[in-house]
Amino acid sequence: MSGADWIALDWGSSHLRAWAMLGDKPMVHATRDTGAGGLARDAFGPALIALVGDWLQADRCIPAYACGMLGSRQGWIEAPYRAVPCAPLDGGLVAAPQADPRVSVYVVPGLKQAKPADVMRGEETQIAGFLALNPGWDGVICLPGTHSKWVHVSAGEVVSFQTFLTGETFALLAGQSVLRHGMAGWDDAGFDAGVAQGLERPDRLLARLFTLRAEGLLDGLDPATARARLSGLLIGAELAAAKPYWLGQRVAVLGAGALAALYGRALDGLSVPVSAHTADAATLAGLAAIRAAHRSEAPCAR
Amino acid sequence: MSGADWIALDWGSSHLRAWAMLGDKPMVHATRDTGAGGLARDAFGPALIALVGDWLQADRCIPAYACGMLGSRQGWIEAPYRAVPCAPLDGGLVAAPQADPRVSVYVVPGLKQAKPADVMRGEETQIAGFLALNPGWDGVICLPGTHSKWVHVSAGEVVSFQTFLTGETFALLAGQSVLRHGMAGWDDAGFDAGVAQGLERPDRLLARLFTLRAEGLLDGLDPATARARLSGLLIGAELAAAKPYWLGQRVAVLGAGALAALYGRALDGLSVPVSAHTADAATLAGLAAIRAAHRSEAPCAR
Repeated sequence: MSGADWIALDWGSSHLRAWAMLGDKPMVHATRDTGAGGLARDAFGPALIALVGDWLQADRCIPAYACGMLGSRQGWIEAPYRAVPCAPLDGGLVAAPQADPRVSVYVVPGLKQAKPADVMRGEETQIAGFLALNPGWDGVICLPGTHSKWVHVSAGEVVSFQTFLTGETFALLAGQSVLRHGMAGWDDAGFDAGVAQGLERPDRLLARLFTLRAEGLLDGLDPATARARLSGLLIGAELAAAKPYWLGQRVAVLGAGALAALYGRALDGLSVPVSAHTADAATLAGLAAIRAAHRSEAPCAR
Repeated sequence: MSGADWIALDWGSSHLRAWAMLGDKPMVHATRDTGAGGLARDAFGPALIALVGDWLQADRCIPAYACGMLGSRQGWIEAPYRAVPCAPLDGGLVAAPQADPRVSVYVVPGLKQAKPADVMRGEETQIAGFLALNPGWDGVICLPGTHSKWVHVSAGEVVSFQTFLTGETFALLAGQSVLRHGMAGWDDAGFDAGVAQGLERPDRLLARLFTLRAEGLLDGLDPATARARLSGLLIGAELAAAKPYWLGQRVAVLGAGALAALYGRALDGLSVPVSAHTADAATLAGLAAIRAAHRSEAPCAR
C-alpha cells in the first residue's frame, strides 16, 4: 500500500511507467517493459495490476490517468485524436474497461493534424505539463525520441506540429544496415561534423550514409566517429527541414538523457536560444492537470 | 560434366551465381544462397564445389573468374581495390587458395574513389561488360540495387562514381520500422507521387516518412500506395542528389527486374534519355573479357 490517491501512467509502445501520486507529488515510481506495442487488448488490465497492484487498497477505488499508445486503435481502448489547433489537453478522456474494482483508468486522447497529416500520443501530455510549469510560455517545443516532434505553441494551444522518423531510422541503420559493421561508441566531434553536413546538404543523406561505409573500408574511419556522424547527419537533416520551426524562435527541448542533450547541442551550434526540460516532470505535471480538471466528475466508475 | 572450358562466377553478399562457359557462351547456369556475407574463409572452396562440381572433369583444370564480395577483406581472399579514374577492369586478378585440382579461381578487384570515399565490388565487371557490348559508349551508368551506384564513364574509364544506400534503407523502413504496419503491394501512381515529392524536397525525407504513417492512421492511406510512395520518396531523393550525374546526360540503367524498371520510369519522367540493359549479360561479358585477357597467363596454377 502506498497511500496514493491517484496513479499516473505513461504507457508507451515499449514501456509502462507508473507513479503512485499523492496530490501533485509522486511517492513511488515503477516501470516494466510491458509496452502497449506488445499487448493484446485483454492483457492491459493484468499488466497494469502486475505493476501497481501493491499500491491499491481493498476498500477504496482510485483513478489512474494514462497517456501514450495504450489509447491507440491497437491499444487498450481507442481515445480518438483531437484536431489541432487546440489546447494540448482539454477533455476527451476515455475510460478503459474496468480491470479491477480498486482502480479506474482514464486514457488521454492524442492530437492530430490534417495537413501535413501528423499524429501524437503522449507528447500532448508533456506539452500540457510543460505549459503548466511555464505559464504563459509561447514558442517552439522540440521533443526528441524515436519519432521526434517539433511543436509550435501559442496562447496555450498547439498550433501545428511535425514528426520526423529520425530516431527510428538511426536505430535501423546503426543496428541492422551494412553500416553496423563500423559503428561503436561515440565521438562529439563526429556528431558535430555530421550535423554540419546534414544541415548543409540534407538532400545528400542517402549518399553520405554510404560514404560512412566507404571511409570505414578505405580510411579506417573510427567506429565511434562513424556512429556519431551518422546520428549527426540524421539530426542535421531533420534540423534543415525543421528550420521554419526554430528559425528566430526560442526552443524548449523536452526530453530525457543523451538524445535530448544532442538536440540541445546541435541547436546551440545554430545560436538558437534553447532551454532543456525533463520529460518526466512534464508528463507528471500534465497528468496532474488532467486529474485536477477531472476530479469533480466521479473518478471511479463502479 | 558440362564441357565447359571456364566458369563465370558472380559471388555477391547474398548469392553465388555460376555459369558453365564455352568461349563466350553460357551453357548451364546455377545459383545458390551461399553468399559471401555468410561464409567463413575456409567455406568458400566447398561452397563453390557444391555448386559447380558437376561441371568439372577429373583430368583437366579449368579457370573460374569471379567478381563480387568474395574479394572483400572478409571474403575468400582480398583483391585490393583499384583507384579511379581507371578502366573498370585492367589486371589485378588475385588467385584464390586452390580448392580443388580441377578448378583455379581468380578474383576481380573492385574500384575505389578517394573523395568522396566510395567503393564498388562486382559493378566494375558489369560496367566493363556493358562497354564491351557497347563499344565507344560515353555517358552515365546507373546500377540500381541494395546500394545503387551512379557512374560517370568516359573514354573507357570510370571517371567518378557515387553510391546511395537507397535500396537497403527502403528494405529496413518497409520491413522493420513503424511504417511496416501500413505497407503491402504496389501502386504506380503512388510511386510517381513519391518520386516527385522526393525530387522537389529531398530535405524533407525524414518528415515525409512519418507522414506516410499518419496518413495511414488518419486518412486510411492504401497500403499499396504507401509502399510505392515510400520507394518513390527514396528514389526521388536519390535522383535529386544524383542530378550532377544525369542532368544533360544519357543514362544506361544496368540492372535486373522491377527495381531497374522503377529507375527507368523515374528518369523517363525527367525526360532523361534512358536505355535499359540486363545486368547478367553485362556481368558475363565482363568476365569473358577478363578471361580473354588472362588466357595466355597459365590459367591453372597447379
